[in-house]
Amino acid sequence: MTRGEFEIIASIARRIPAPGRDVVVGEGDDCAVIRCDAREDLLVTTDLLLEGRHFLPDAAPQDVGWKALAVSISDVAAMGGRPRHAVAAIALRPQQTGAYADGLATGLLRCARRHGVDLVGGDTNATDGPAVVCVTLTGKVARGRAVLRSGARVGDAICVTGALGGSLARRHLRVTPRVAEAAALVRGGRVHAMIDLSDGLSSDLGHVLDASRVGAEVWADAVPVHRDARRASAQDGRSALAHALDDGEDFELLFTVPERRARSLAKSGLAGTPVAWIGRITRRGYVLRDREGGPGRAMIRGGHDHFRSP
Amino acid sequence: MTRGEFEIIASIARRIPAPGRDVVVGEGDDCAVIRCDAREDLLVTTDLLLEGRHFLPDAAPQDVGWKALAVSISDVAAMGGRPRHAVAAIALRPQQTGAYADGLATGLLRCARRHGVDLVGGDTNATDGPAVVCVTLTGKVARGRAVLRSGARVGDAICVTGALGGSLARRHLRVTPRVAEAAALVRGGRVHAMIDLSDGLSSDLGHVLDASRVGAEVWADAVPVHRDARRASAQDGRSALAHALDDGEDFELLFTVPERRARSLAKSGLAGTPVAWIGRITRRGYVLRDREGGPGRAMIRGGHDHFRSP
Repeated sequence: MTRGEFEIIASIARRIPAPGRDVVVGEGDDCAVIRCDAREDLLVTTDLLLEGRHFLPDAAPQDVGWKALAVSISDVAAMGGRPRHAVAAIALRPQQTGAYADGLATGLLRCARRHGVDLVGGDTNATDGPAVVCVTLTGKVARGRAVLRSGARVGDAICVTGALGGSLARRHLRVTPRVAEAAALVRGGRVHAMIDLSDGLSSDLGHVLDASRVGAEVWADAVPVHRDARRASAQDGRSALAHALDDGEDFELLFTVPERRARSLAKSGLAGTPVAWIGRITRRGYVLRDREGGPGRAMIRGGHDHFRSP
Repeated sequence: MTRGEFEIIASIARRIPAPGRDVVVGEGDDCAVIRCDAREDLLVTTDLLLEGRHFLPDAAPQDVGWKALAVSISDVAAMGGRPRHAVAAIALRPQQTGAYADGLATGLLRCARRHGVDLVGGDTNATDGPAVVCVTLTGKVARGRAVLRSGARVGDAICVTGALGGSLARRHLRVTPRVAEAAALVRGGRVHAMIDLSDGLSSDLGHVLDASRVGAEVWADAVPVHRDARRASAQDGRSALAHALDDGEDFELLFTVPERRARSLAKSGLAGTPVAWIGRITRRGYVLRDREGGPGRAMIRGGHDHFRSP
């Protein structure tokens, strides 16, 4: 029997013993949070990309290297943190040891420079199977100020940056981690919960609801649908909204704030990126409805499960 | 053209820009060393294990999980550090999501508990290729006290813990990281350089010589040959000494200290583990000779290159 990704994670998580006192947040958020010094906490996150799953064999190696680090930077941003030091473990096929390896390094180092990250080490291996790039990134955040998935409160507004859906056609390799947006958001205070959209809005908001023990309603006509989602819809017949809710790999930020703040963010955006106010946190349930009301439909967690999706 | 592992690493390393001031040691040692607070520095290391390369498909998953963390703990030990927090990124084949995944977690958590490590997060993926386990580990070491590869001085004694060679037959999965030995060694002071033996003594001592810009002579009859190396020799006809020098995956410590200290360590051992004094650091060259002298032979770096070895 094949278990799903989240079942495996849950089964391992249940068996992790109580951590040391310096572990503020262990398994189950975008990053672990470790007490470091009087001023700042340490963030740690790891992401593994597989050829054929997260990137195709014909993807430009520069894009693969960029993405491998950018997805981890997105995780640090989603905690309200500042990315700092990365290590990269790679496994390459024999025919990838020349130009491909160089291209990978180019993309990785370009992304590192852009975001103030130091690449401080790694591990290099040969493989007969698909290539693997696993980046682990540390970050820093003001002590006690990491924004968790578990902080959403009933009545909070749910907001997202940018527009969603259809990223697999092109954007998913050219990830733009929302570091500046997260920093601007956190500087403004009162951000209750945050996550980056990697599995897809329906799944990722679900993670926030689970961690916060609350429900949500999402307003169908308020979800910012990317033009790539419309393109995908024209091709496969699924609605553009379904693409926006379920596709994943958007690497936008989803966060909850008091309504008043959401109103101002929806007008001003964050660091030049639009912000959409897409719903609110409720006591229980998970529904998708039109803004004018009506009964709504149950929200299905249609996002990506690595063991379940094709 | 297939480039070797160390050529790829060197090519990437050359392109890494000067790191931030908080990076004490970047690429090129067992761990990166990051300035953390007034008392301690942060260590970071990452190791990727591939099914079919670092473990066979029929290896017990408990052993694989143990090894995946133990090899990183060995890296932290080799800096004189204390292991602290780990994240694990895994990719499993569909038929490995049940008992195999549980066994992997069992081995990982057992190794973590044994060495005071908290598992604080990870990433779980499906793969059609060989399974992958990539562990990244942080550690702590007293500020400015990390033992580097680059500190060996002419006249130093070269020592190793335990016995070497033939580990692939059985021991390589049941790695016993030499944390207590390293701690006892560092407490005694005056350790100039250290590395853990993963690629094989001939290669790993070579790394120390490169980093320290010195040479070495190794005394053939002083190298502690494991009984597994003798077994391997009986089977394949290569000398037991060649197995001890080149096999790799011993995960013993190699370090350099003043001769006086080596004399006492060779008598007392470290934390119950024998220590062998196997040679000395010279101005240049890299030779293997009998203790009584003679011209010696050039030492060949016969250790493991992931892209070159079968």
